[in-house]
This record gives sequence, C-alpha cells and structure tokens, in this order.
Amino acid sequence: MPIKTLILTNTWLTQSFKAKLENLFAHQTDYEVQFKSEADLTADDFAETEVLIAIPSPQLLPKFKKLKWLQLFSAGTNGYTEGAAFPAGVALTNASGTYGVTISEHLLTMALVLMRRFNVYASQQEQEIWQNAGDLQSIYGSTILVHGLGDIGGHFAQKVQALGAHVIAVKRTVYGDDQFADEVYPESELDKILPKVDLIATSVPGTKETYKLFDAAKFALMKPNAIFLNVGRGTNVDLEALCDALDNGKLGAAGLDVTDPEPLPKGHRAWHTPNLLITPHASGGYTIPESRHRFIEILRTNLQNYIEGKPLRNLVDMQTGYKKK
Amino acid sequence: MPIKTLILTNTWLTQSFKAKLENLFAHQTDYEVQFKSEADLTADDFAETEVLIAIPSPQLLPKFKKLKWLQLFSAGTNGYTEGAAFPAGVALTNASGTYGVTISEHLLTMALVLMRRFNVYASQQEQEIWQNAGDLQSIYGSTILVHGLGDIGGHFAQKVQALGAHVIAVKRTVYGDDQFADEVYPESELDKILPKVDLIATSVPGTKETYKLFDAAKFALMKPNAIFLNVGRGTNVDLEALCDALDNGKLGAAGLDVTDPEPLPKGHRAWHTPNLLITPHASGGYTIPESRHRFIEILRTNLQNYIEGKPLRNLVDMQTGYKKK
Repeated sequence: MPIKTLILTNTWLTQSFKAKLENLFAHQTDYEVQFKSEADLTADDFAETEVLIAIPSPQLLPKFKKLKWLQLFSAGTNGYTEGAAFPAGVALTNASGTYGVTISEHLLTMALVLMRRFNVYASQQEQEIWQNAGDLQSIYGSTILVHGLGDIGGHFAQKVQALGAHVIAVKRTVYGDDQFADEVYPESELDKILPKVDLIATSVPGTKETYKLFDAAKFALMKPNAIFLNVGRGTNVDLEALCDALDNGKLGAAGLDVTDPEPLPKGHRAWHTPNLLITPHASGGYTIPESRHRFIEILRTNLQNYIEGKPLRNLVDMQTGYKKK
Repeated sequence: MPIKTLILTNTWLTQSFKAKLENLFAHQTDYEVQFKSEADLTADDFAETEVLIAIPSPQLLPKFKKLKWLQLFSAGTNGYTEGAAFPAGVALTNASGTYGVTISEHLLTMALVLMRRFNVYASQQEQEIWQNAGDLQSIYGSTILVHGLGDIGGHFAQKVQALGAHVIAVKRTVYGDDQFADEVYPESELDKILPKVDLIATSVPGTKETYKLFDAAKFALMKPNAIFLNVGRGTNVDLEALCDALDNGKLGAAGLDVTDPEPLPKGHRAWHTPNLLITPHASGGYTIPESRHRFIEILRTNLQNYIEGKPLRNLVDMQTGYKKK
C-alpha cells in the first residue's frame, strides 16, 4: 500500500514550485501524495498520514498518529526543536542547502541598494528629481562581517569576496574553515570586530543565545556609517534599539528581511525609520529556479532513502536545531 | 616658471575628490594649479593656461591660446572628437580605467533591484504592506549579454560571472579576448543574441553607429521578461520605444542611468513608466574611494610624463574617440 503523504500548502508554494513537486511525485509509485491546507485536514488525514512535507503549525503534530517523517520546507527549525513537544520517533529533516544562493543574493541586493543610495534614487524618481546623491559606499575595498557561516553566510561571503570586499566571518565553532573568508573568529570575539567593519550581515538562527543579540550596546560598537543587515530571525534584533540608532545617526543604514514582531504591523515606526529598508521575509522561499531545484533534489533523495531504510539527508539534531554533520 | 594649470569645478568634484586633487598638487612644484568655475575664467586664464583638467564646454577650448593638454574627468569623449573643432596640437587624455569598478557595481545594483523586485518592495514599504512578491529572477543561472567589453563591460562581466551567470559579450572588434565572458561575438551578431538572453547591459559610447541603436525593432527581439540596462549614452536608446515596450508588456524591466533628453525633464512619461528604474547619470563619477584613487594615479603619471616629454597615458584617438591601444 502506498505511503500516505501530505504536502501542506502555504505561501511558500508558488505555482512554479507546486508544478515541480507534482512532477516529482508523478514518478513515485511508493507514495500517495495530496496537497492540502491545514484548515482542510480530516480525521483520516490525522489517522493515516506517514510523511508530511510542510512548515506545519507545531501544535498539530501530536494529532498525526502514524507520522514517521516531517520534511520541512524551511531551514529554520524554530517551534520543532529546543523544548518543543515534538513527537518522539518522528524524523525531522530541514531544507538546509536550498536557500544559500537566493538569500545571499537578497543580502547582496540590500547591501548595494543602501551603499549606493538606490533608496534615495527611488524616492527622487517618484518626485521626478534628477539629482546626484554624492559620495557613496562600495563593496569593493570595504570590510564586511559575515555573522554565521552556514549555507547563507558562506554564499554571501563568497559573493562579496568576489566583488572585492575583505571578509571577516564570525561563527559558533571555528574549525579553521576559512575557504570563503579572509579571517574567521569565534562568537566570543564579536564585540572586538564590530567597530572595524563597514557592513554586518547576520544570518544566524533564532535560539536562546541569539535572542536580542543585536541591541543598543551592539549598535553603539558599530561605525556611525556602518550598514546592518539581518536575514536570520527577527527576534535576534532589538528593533526599537535599531530604530533609535538610525534615528539618532549612530548607524548608517539597515536592511531587515525579518522583524519582531512579524509581520511588521501597520503603524510600526520601523516602516518609516530613515535609511531602514524592509522586505517581508522574502529573501528565501522558492522564488528562484535554483532554490526549487535544490529542494527537489533533497526530497528526491529522501523519498528514496526512506523507502530503503537509509539515513535521511538534512536530519535535524533536536538539541542544536541544526542539521546533523 | 610653473605650468599654469586649471581644474574646472563642476558636479564631478565632491569634497572628498577635491581634497585628493589638492593633496596631489601640493607635491607638484612644476605646476601652479587653481580650481575655477567656467563662469569665473579671466582673460589671463585664457591667455596663459597650458593644462586643463576638466570636462569643459567644447566651445571654450579655442579661447585657450596656450593650451597643450586637456585631461578629461570622463571616459566619454563626445563633443571633443568625431568632427568637433578640437584645437590642433592639444593632447586629449580621458579617464578610461577609473570607472569600471563603480559603474559595474551600479549596473549590478540595477540588475538585482529589478530581478528581485526591490522596486515593488520599496513601494510596499512606503504603504506599510508586508506581502511576498512571488517568483523572481536571479543572476545565478541566468544568461547575460554584456554589450561593450571595455573597462565597464569587462568589470560587469567578471562580477556577474562570479555570481553564477552565463556571460555573452558583444563588442566592436573580437580579438579572442574572452577572459571574462563565456562567449564573445562581434557587433554584427547582436540581433541573433538578443532573443537568447535574460538581461542586456549596454555600456558603449555615443557615436554615429550607436545612435538610437536600441529601438522598437531591437526591443521586439528581446524576451518578454528580459531586463535592459543602459549606462552608456542616453542617445543610444529610443526612449519612447522603450517606454512603449514596457507599457505594452513586451519587455520585463529596464534600468537607465543615462537618458535622451538628459537631464530627464519633469513631466516626461519615463519617470512613471512601470518597471523602469531611473538614476540621474550617477553610476560613474568619483563617488567611491576606488574611482578617486584610480583617477589620481592616471593624473600623477601624466603630470610626470608631461614634464619629461614622455607619451601620456589614456591619449585619445581623435578618429575613434577611444583611448589609443
């Protein structure tokens, strides 16, 4: 009997991504797959589903009585690890490795827009004003701190190094893995490095250790014209402190693809804080062809390995929230 | 007696660039330098000046009776070559080699903003809207046409190749110089290549051959979702035809740093044509440290060579308008 498999639909599933998933399962006779929204789940779904491909509401998980494997569409595992009541005996795999290309391109776009004042030019175009914005910053010749050197940080470091930046990486554990950075330091050195850099790009996950890591004290350590970018988790930044730093000219500019609270509510001061660029958690997802391709390759391998009883790719370590090495 | 030298001030001279020029001349005892606006030129200036560092109004040049050398701040030589009444016996040198880094970064910013819909996100932020813009384009995996493979095109080709694009270059003369492109073709092949590419970046100078080169027929050859970028000369593009192509959905998006007419007048339809990004001839100039550094190095060499009677760097071929090889 085929394995009952559900793909929970949500905003991650663009039309082109759904088409690729359908095409993959069209060649899988061991699995019987359905696309469903959470609101449409039936008693039979909860009783019989063995494999979930989704970013499900965590509180729904205990209701799935036969669940054996949850493949997340996301790299982040918040809500499933670190004290969450994740059902025992269910394998959790994430999408680590699918996002590096797209999120690093998003980071690069944010960096260039703010360095070259394209936010100013956009506003001038709206008002039909033809006027040079004067001196700019450049990736070429700048010193860039890449905070977190996983899939995202590694790709971003490689990109800005190719564009002529000096790259300093700060990461949890230093193995001597400096292939994409000119210097690599452990997290304990962060405060010593912040005053030296022109741009900070953080992509670390949301954990107890990173909660409001970037606060007023951290922003005070940065150069007054530094640019701060966050694509990790909104909770890693004290948003009020960031808005204060920008309002008071203590920081040059900032770009946030994640916020706390998220979505950023209408009326929040951050929407109109000067030199603050906001994108709606849109850096990742499956919006470019390469991301869709990489997810499909992970899923294709795992569907095969699951049938054959082999270890799954991207199995998450429930203690750290990262994929196992 | 020191050589009378004038630096004509205009919008290219940011405060930081002027400071670097003053510092260079502080160490040159053979030259007596002054910064002046064209409006303040005296009879004595016209009678005695031997060296001009400027982008002067061409009609002023015959008034300089002792002029021997004009060092342009620009790479473009329009107005000084190709039939212009440029005074005989005056050496013309341009700033070729100073702009590649900054203009290629500007092109990259335009490409990323349009591919990743940051123009949409900017407008959403203004309206406090948190909403994903859906499927995007990516430099990674795309095919990019670099039209003109000089200092600017060469740097842009190198950048997007490092970011994962397949690069096709089209240039006047093909020497087998394919170091930064995956394929290189002569200008005569342009129409065959346009239908194959996701993005076109043109940086060719304004000549008789390139006047309105990009017209309705060329836009019709491009993919309907292609992105067209111009940092060469505004006169190389039929702006009405470009606006029509964008209005009618025959082209995905466009980015222009140069326009015809220029400056773009208030009320021109191009300011508000959908998916058209306009910057005010701001891609070059001396707004980033590397550009200032490179110009100062050319000028330092030429000030020395001029004294010693050696050939000047970046001497312009009056027939082609390009620097001599």
